[in-house]
Amino acid sequence: MMSASRPAAQEAAPVFVTQIPEGYRDWKLISVAHEAGNLNSLGAVLGNDVAIRAYREGTIPFPDGTIITALHYIHSPNEENNKIFGRPQSFTPGAPTNIQFMVKDSTKYAATGGWGFGHFQNGKPADQAFMRPCFPCHAQEKAHDLVFTRYAP
Amino acid sequence: MMSASRPAAQEAAPVFVTQIPEGYRDWKLISVAHEAGNLNSLGAVLGNDVAIRAYREGTIPFPDGTIITALHYIHSPNEENNKIFGRPQSFTPGAPTNIQFMVKDSTKYAATGGWGFGHFQNGKPADQAFMRPCFPCHAQEKAHDLVFTRYAP
Repeated sequence: MMSASRPAAQEAAPVFVTQIPEGYRDWKLISVAHEAGNLNSLGAVLGNDVAIRAYREGTIPFPDGTIITALHYIHSPNEENNKIFGRPQSFTPGAPTNIQFMVKDSTKYAATGGWGFGHFQNGKPADQAFMRPCFPCHAQEKAHDLVFTRYAP
Repeated sequence: MMSASRPAAQEAAPVFVTQIPEGYRDWKLISVAHEAGNLNSLGAVLGNDVAIRAYREGTIPFPDGTIITALHYIHSPNEENNKIFGRPQSFTPGAPTNIQFMVKDSTKYAATGGWGFGHFQNGKPADQAFMRPCFPCHAQEKAHDLVFTRYAP
């Protein structure tokens, strides 16, 4: 992520989010997502008040204080629903898999585009090696300030 | 829905929800759902404070004042995400299709299990013929007070 020719003082190691922000389960809905294939994930994306305001007003880049969270679950066939609906159509959240956060703080997270990335399983943060690919992948979404999720009306 | 032998006075026609409850887009998340097949729907289910409290405390039947809403969108491949992820895996909300409500009022909606059902497209309520199947289908979920959606942690 850093050029080898940069002075040592600027070679800040990426800082990750290692504490779960408080109250995230009460935040408002930004959108939902289904990631098929190996991920087999069904998720909800929520935002704190700063995030929701920025989304609704179309503010890019997101202001400091923005926190976005993705709650991920196994994309599970719901056999009880399918029986009632008479068709194998219904997929709902199975076991929770992980909870992710993006926290905007352009000073603290300067090394990773102003965003701190967090990934938690069973309440425990993922290790540094696991987290390193977050930023380079999100960086490809530069036009939307590194955030994949758009607001669902 | 009503036995032919009931007295006329009790043969209440089902009452549907024809006005969109205020502020629903700010409500908290209950869960998400993907309905495949013809519906091809990706949705979020939100609840007002009464609903969220009942879900978190496991209160069944839901108390009067509960309102649950389902925001439905087309389950759309997200080509921009897929290009970055390198795999055709990502499905996110396309155009909104409809917004549904279940409003609990055991007096007003006595004819339909205490629930008023609402379905809106472009802000307009569906007609009576469209709405009639709501109750008999939901009635099959009697053990969970006619509500399909479970709370996602």
